[in-house]
Amino acid sequence: MEVKKITRAEDYSAWYNNLVRSADLADHSDVKGCMVIKPYGYAIWEKMQQELDKRFKETGHQNAYFPLFIPKSFFSKEASHVDGFAKECAVVTHYRLKTGENGEIVVDEDAKLEEELIVRPTSETIIWNTYRDWIKSYRDLPLLINQWANVVRWEMRTRLFLRTTEFLWQEGHTAHATSDEAIIETKQMLDIYADFAEKIMAVPVIKGVKTENERFAGALETYCIEGLMQDGKALQMGTSHFLGQNFAKAFEVKYVNRENKQEYVWATSWGVSTRLMGALIMSHSDDDGLVLPPNLAPIQVVIVPITGKKAEDIALVLGKAGEIRDILKKRGISVKLDDRDNLSPGFKFAEHELRGVPVRIAIGPRDIQNETVEVARRDTKEKQVMSHIDLDHKMEHLLAQIQQNIYQKALDFRDQNITAVNTWDEFMHTLENKPGFVSAHWDGTTETELKIKEQTKATIRCIPLNNPAEQGKCILTGKPSTQRVLFARAY
Amino acid sequence: MEVKKITRAEDYSAWYNNLVRSADLADHSDVKGCMVIKPYGYAIWEKMQQELDKRFKETGHQNAYFPLFIPKSFFSKEASHVDGFAKECAVVTHYRLKTGENGEIVVDEDAKLEEELIVRPTSETIIWNTYRDWIKSYRDLPLLINQWANVVRWEMRTRLFLRTTEFLWQEGHTAHATSDEAIIETKQMLDIYADFAEKIMAVPVIKGVKTENERFAGALETYCIEGLMQDGKALQMGTSHFLGQNFAKAFEVKYVNRENKQEYVWATSWGVSTRLMGALIMSHSDDDGLVLPPNLAPIQVVIVPITGKKAEDIALVLGKAGEIRDILKKRGISVKLDDRDNLSPGFKFAEHELRGVPVRIAIGPRDIQNETVEVARRDTKEKQVMSHIDLDHKMEHLLAQIQQNIYQKALDFRDQNITAVNTWDEFMHTLENKPGFVSAHWDGTTETELKIKEQTKATIRCIPLNNPAEQGKCILTGKPSTQRVLFARAY
Repeated sequence: MEVKKITRAEDYSAWYNNLVRSADLADHSDVKGCMVIKPYGYAIWEKMQQELDKRFKETGHQNAYFPLFIPKSFFSKEASHVDGFAKECAVVTHYRLKTGENGEIVVDEDAKLEEELIVRPTSETIIWNTYRDWIKSYRDLPLLINQWANVVRWEMRTRLFLRTTEFLWQEGHTAHATSDEAIIETKQMLDIYADFAEKIMAVPVIKGVKTENERFAGALETYCIEGLMQDGKALQMGTSHFLGQNFAKAFEVKYVNRENKQEYVWATSWGVSTRLMGALIMSHSDDDGLVLPPNLAPIQVVIVPITGKKAEDIALVLGKAGEIRDILKKRGISVKLDDRDNLSPGFKFAEHELRGVPVRIAIGPRDIQNETVEVARRDTKEKQVMSHIDLDHKMEHLLAQIQQNIYQKALDFRDQNITAVNTWDEFMHTLENKPGFVSAHWDGTTETELKIKEQTKATIRCIPLNNPAEQGKCILTGKPSTQRVLFARAY
Repeated sequence: MEVKKITRAEDYSAWYNNLVRSADLADHSDVKGCMVIKPYGYAIWEKMQQELDKRFKETGHQNAYFPLFIPKSFFSKEASHVDGFAKECAVVTHYRLKTGENGEIVVDEDAKLEEELIVRPTSETIIWNTYRDWIKSYRDLPLLINQWANVVRWEMRTRLFLRTTEFLWQEGHTAHATSDEAIIETKQMLDIYADFAEKIMAVPVIKGVKTENERFAGALETYCIEGLMQDGKALQMGTSHFLGQNFAKAFEVKYVNRENKQEYVWATSWGVSTRLMGALIMSHSDDDGLVLPPNLAPIQVVIVPITGKKAEDIALVLGKAGEIRDILKKRGISVKLDDRDNLSPGFKFAEHELRGVPVRIAIGPRDIQNETVEVARRDTKEKQVMSHIDLDHKMEHLLAQIQQNIYQKALDFRDQNITAVNTWDEFMHTLENKPGFVSAHWDGTTETELKIKEQTKATIRCIPLNNPAEQGKCILTGKPSTQRVLFARAY
């Protein structure tokens, strides 16, 4: 570990990049815009996947897999979709290389594709092209499918996890007989994302609807969850789209209803990605490294033996540490005994802090005499002495406390950083001096939204669900408004 | 289900294609060479993934993720590798589309990549390029990494699961301080594959070494597991490669050893793919559909209520069927109550047979009076009457019996279809009349191997591990040989 320490106050962006790399979560690759997800980062992503997948299956969804490549012509079929997605993308034009005249490897011009293939930026088109064969009658509906996959959106400015050319995600694509059913599904998946973010990631989110301008290309309505990072910037953490009959019409997907009539199918799609790793890191971590909620920590408890140099002490301490590990393991806790003999306890402490292990147990010869250990929390840095016999039943409780505390801290921060303003001056002043969500009136037009974005870099993150009606005036135009919306600068 | 029935005897190949599609495992997509894996097929693949992933992690491997794209120049660095893989591949040349003069979507020639990107056919090059940064000292070794990913190898003739342009797989890539350690790893992973194939897939395999000609491009030694399908063709089901220092040298990956000297790192790679789905289907299924081993069946037991039309019977039967479902569920059995009210029992029986559900329980009003059910096995088609109270403790045993029986049947078939021959005439006669493995002497040269392949389409599948030494003469050239090898026509 050769880690230069950068604090959040010094340079939040540099702190983030440094942390992602030094905590072994991910790194830039030599392929422009693409990242390598390192084992420790991938282990956290796998935990996220398991939790989400369980929730998808509990609500009747099944996984499937569709092709990586999408023929160019498919994109043209849904007009707004091609504008939103097909433009910045990886285009496959050839299917063979050959050895050139000087022995170098070159593209074989004889192997040019008749129609170019796009590496999927999202899979609505290829999936709805397939659904045409799968859906014939109302008996085939609803069709509730999810896919775990990699997607590619060409990005010029990338940031690890937050914005990369290739990323990993899940994309749900469901088909329904009625508009109502599809809307219920769209909202259900939003609720699942919000529940996952709050209970598992310990990140509070605001559920809302996107404005027309921020809507998914091809959707009638885009629902989202928005989180607030420690630097006061917002992060869109997941979206769930009501697609109406747009894709059904583009790909001629009809079903025979109970009255034996042909009707177009109604659609939803919804997704979260490895971007959630960025949200997790930026919500909780501190200047000493990651802070992981126990529900996602690959290692929940690490035991560091403080052996000294005497052979008998080493045997004694490692023996007891092993016993403690086995006791915690039986409880279903993910525990690691760090018995590397070439590293000092101080080095190990710093490394496990950097990697966000929620609980550290230190045990030395004197602790064994006293039948105690030292238990340190990563989130608060508090230490306590715990007797051996208490460990067994107290550890689960402690982990639950940490999970709750991390969430509460993030919730308090978020709630303290929503500022209601009524004038343009207040709006500008808040954006400059108190980053976070700004709750303000807006006249409901895209024109105004874009002007505000141009002048301030702040965007409308969402119109919160269950927003109270309130008479007001647009902060920019002074035109009447019936509700506040949430602005913020965002990732 | 509009399934035309094709028997194996009529046309094995058509039977296979028909079964894959009618049992809802996979289907061709409109993207040439790429398949759609349907939910039922994907559920089986997920079970395979879980079993394999568990075994990888138990042996100390961690998952990670590397970029989909590989710069063209990376392939040139390992000479034999580029010949083996980089030629038939998807080449990304541009990163943007635009709207053309007539409103059509065209490739933006201004967005041409300086260096073409190859969609990974396998990841040795990008991974070893990364390992250069990860490996500095002997303390960083061994590095035991696995990746679950999609890969692309351009194929002109494709078959669902067996040979597709895009497929899903896992690829392990490990780095070691010594040659011995790397060889031990190579063999360990082969053993894991064999154990998985036999215990979970119920497919017996022969472990062996590939000839030089059949070796992985870039490997010093390729180990494999070979299965035998019901039509007598062999199928390579997994490979594990000892890569020596080839990739370490190509990508300059060195470590400092305990004596403080720089040395090149030793490598292995190993993989299995969705091809295993093809092996599973072709090993066990019959003319009525899939036969799934209980260890991989998404639904292990299906309960079909035979209700008749009386409302009180329907309530009674569904009630009891639900009780049985709950009892079996508590035992950890994957059970489904097929209570669809618009389909006849006969239709349901045929559908569950087609989908290979290992056990079917039928229950009607008379069964309830007798406190019995009818239990039918998919593998043997045997039916038995079982009392309600027996179901609870007998079902697990029955599933284990079925698993064992399916394996034994495949093993007997395999063993009966290994024929030892000593002359060219015997060899040809066996290939034509008794498909399967042919055990024969070979002079050890690639020249002879290729001649035999050209004349017979049979290839050397492997030199079995622990092959007994035996003096003999090559079936083609008559030159001396010290051991038999296994020939077969193969997928």
